[in-house]
Amino acid sequence: MNRTEPRTLAGFMELLPEEQILFNQMKEKIEKTYQKYGFLPLDTPIIELSEVLLAKAGGETEKQIYRFNKGETDLSLRFDLTVPLSKYVAKNYGNLSFPFRRYQIGKVYRGEKTQKGRFREFYQCDMDIIGDGELDVINDSELPSIIYTIFKELGFDRFTICINNRKILNGLFAYLGQKERAVEILRVIDKMDKIGKQAVSEELGKLEIDKQAIEKIMSFIAIEGNPDQKIQNLENLGIDNEVYTKGVEELKEVVKNIRLFGVPDTNFKVDLTIARGLDYYTGTVYETFLNDYRELGSVCSGGRYENLAEYYTDKKLPGVGISIGLTRLFYKLNELNLIKAEQKSIAEILIIPMVEDLEKPIALASQLRNLGVKTEIYLNEKKLKTKFKYADKLKIPYVIVVGEDEITNHKLKVKNMETGEEQEVIFDATKIKEIIR
Amino acid sequence: MNRTEPRTLAGFMELLPEEQILFNQMKEKIEKTYQKYGFLPLDTPIIELSEVLLAKAGGETEKQIYRFNKGETDLSLRFDLTVPLSKYVAKNYGNLSFPFRRYQIGKVYRGEKTQKGRFREFYQCDMDIIGDGELDVINDSELPSIIYTIFKELGFDRFTICINNRKILNGLFAYLGQKERAVEILRVIDKMDKIGKQAVSEELGKLEIDKQAIEKIMSFIAIEGNPDQKIQNLENLGIDNEVYTKGVEELKEVVKNIRLFGVPDTNFKVDLTIARGLDYYTGTVYETFLNDYRELGSVCSGGRYENLAEYYTDKKLPGVGISIGLTRLFYKLNELNLIKAEQKSIAEILIIPMVEDLEKPIALASQLRNLGVKTEIYLNEKKLKTKFKYADKLKIPYVIVVGEDEITNHKLKVKNMETGEEQEVIFDATKIKEIIR
Repeated sequence: MNRTEPRTLAGFMELLPEEQILFNQMKEKIEKTYQKYGFLPLDTPIIELSEVLLAKAGGETEKQIYRFNKGETDLSLRFDLTVPLSKYVAKNYGNLSFPFRRYQIGKVYRGEKTQKGRFREFYQCDMDIIGDGELDVINDSELPSIIYTIFKELGFDRFTICINNRKILNGLFAYLGQKERAVEILRVIDKMDKIGKQAVSEELGKLEIDKQAIEKIMSFIAIEGNPDQKIQNLENLGIDNEVYTKGVEELKEVVKNIRLFGVPDTNFKVDLTIARGLDYYTGTVYETFLNDYRELGSVCSGGRYENLAEYYTDKKLPGVGISIGLTRLFYKLNELNLIKAEQKSIAEILIIPMVEDLEKPIALASQLRNLGVKTEIYLNEKKLKTKFKYADKLKIPYVIVVGEDEITNHKLKVKNMETGEEQEVIFDATKIKEIIR
Repeated sequence: MNRTEPRTLAGFMELLPEEQILFNQMKEKIEKTYQKYGFLPLDTPIIELSEVLLAKAGGETEKQIYRFNKGETDLSLRFDLTVPLSKYVAKNYGNLSFPFRRYQIGKVYRGEKTQKGRFREFYQCDMDIIGDGELDVINDSELPSIIYTIFKELGFDRFTICINNRKILNGLFAYLGQKERAVEILRVIDKMDKIGKQAVSEELGKLEIDKQAIEKIMSFIAIEGNPDQKIQNLENLGIDNEVYTKGVEELKEVVKNIRLFGVPDTNFKVDLTIARGLDYYTGTVYETFLNDYRELGSVCSGGRYENLAEYYTDKKLPGVGISIGLTRLFYKLNELNLIKAEQKSIAEILIIPMVEDLEKPIALASQLRNLGVKTEIYLNEKKLKTKFKYADKLKIPYVIVVGEDEITNHKLKVKNMETGEEQEVIFDATKIKEIIR
């Protein structure tokens, strides 16, 4: 027979079972946290009409899209979960309750250049709160507390949620008469960490920005201190611009409420240089960094937008949301050995029958399952050694051998595969459960 | 602004939140059951190289496939979860432990003609047991017990798992010298329910099958009784063919062990006319019917195959598996009002603050969440009536209003939204949890 080499596309993650269990545990922790805050689940198609999906898109994104025809129809694979959400809310506006709080965890597709740690198919874990016409700024403070809960659940203590408000930057640039140069200026500011204060100031000079403006910008990015000090410095900077003032007010409100929502000061800060995509966000913006692994970049980002679905509806739908790029995050954390598996196998116990008549071992497996214990029974005729090796390779934590003696004496040994320890117990599922849980 | 009409492709399911919750509950029950039996999770890409995905495909399936180029690469969307499994096992053979027991729940794509209840994007929930070189027939008996558990979990009592063995049909036709006509004969036999015995016998005559053979076939399909009686009749039919005899033996073994695995006789039967796809299955085959809704067709099917991955590897990998077409099943059951929602909302309780300072209501929400209670807090300034209407529309079962009085008196009322009943309790998350759980 002519055989095809079994292979998986570059940029598409496909895991071995043990890693898959780990990945799923991470995904589940994120989902459980979203649910803990009462967010509703959503599942939208991976394929959409190109006309609908690309109503807004353009530039880089459009080039990366998986787009094709099926019959006469021009189709595209979703490249994020925000556009499908926009479509969904516009389409189902009359059937939704607002604020509409939804989470969606699903795969998205971008034909990026493949390189280590970059994926063309990857999971995004999104949550958004959408208001009908308006959405109070306090919602911007609940999301950081969800980010906080998720990363604590994932086993991290040292991470920082960085918060800024786009109105502050927009207002500052407007005040300085540099609105059109905002992108360029932000690009220069962004190099601060790398090239230092002096070089930034010089590069700004090259953009033909007048000296006074450069001075303002430099004193803006020089603002230091805890969130409250930074806000006070922003208020004292003497920027007479309505948008700027509004931004500082919002930031103040968000910082105040974040604390009410239980995020400790060690896990958030105000970072005035965060901008996140220039045209989409209009208020609060978030980025999240693992303190000891800044090189991973932001592991959870998002922000406030003025109007979710303007390409589909005239209804004004402001919202605030966050997103976790799970596939990449998993890949990086796994590479750095930073994810702790609570359980490395699905089965909690393996029953190994060593008898002809399987009635008793199967009955025991059924009883354990009925008690909620994830139980596998080894069903193939093999040597005892092979069966134990199987449990070992699959990292199943407990094993019970059921042979003639065990059945006759109505006694079993529960073997802890990690310690090698064996515990004798009567032939009873409830007793076994007590030992292994 | 030029607006695009927000729409979803025909044949692609997109649910409102309340239905999505229901769908997810069903999906979760299936997944939990798979895990209860110790099956490992698997997640493979939705996009594969066409060369790999279509190594075997052909005919009808190939026409339905979403196939396209990205750059120079010829890609296809998976149309089932079996081919990706074959590829995966062949590719990772050295890294897997056999028997390899995996489940996969994911979307697959088929460009079928759109009609009510037919989907182009749909979830399949598969589980398979793959042996390395061999796989004992007892594995064929564990799967029906999983089907049994799933449909009980989904709230059904009246369903029947129909079991047959392909070797019996193959052996019979070989014995009758009708191997080449197997497809045609099965097609005629399949009409039995519709056209009756006499007409079937006549149609077989038209296929130019000799009288004696027709008589054998007619006495074969006339076999009645409980599983044991049917097996005995099969043994007494006087078919002297090795494959046939092997098939009857396997069926006997499967029936015996199914009972050990706890499937009651009311929920399974031997159905000698089930064939399921002629070239793939080689032994046990299953179909599952809801007794009161036969018109839905089989809601869970599968069977035993000789060789999973022959298109990718020379390793012999026999297996047995089942699949549930979840999207269609959900659609039909929902239409018939046959799914019971255990919970219609994600949030278990809504906290409605009616105070300026949100410190106390937010703290209460955090405490409830820390106790594992899914809690939403209504964060926007609205009238009390609007807030209650929101809880009502979202079917959140309990509501607590936190106003000045509640804070001053340190007492709250937990309102049961279904009964309207209110219960007074001190301002304490633990006490509240006791009331609502």
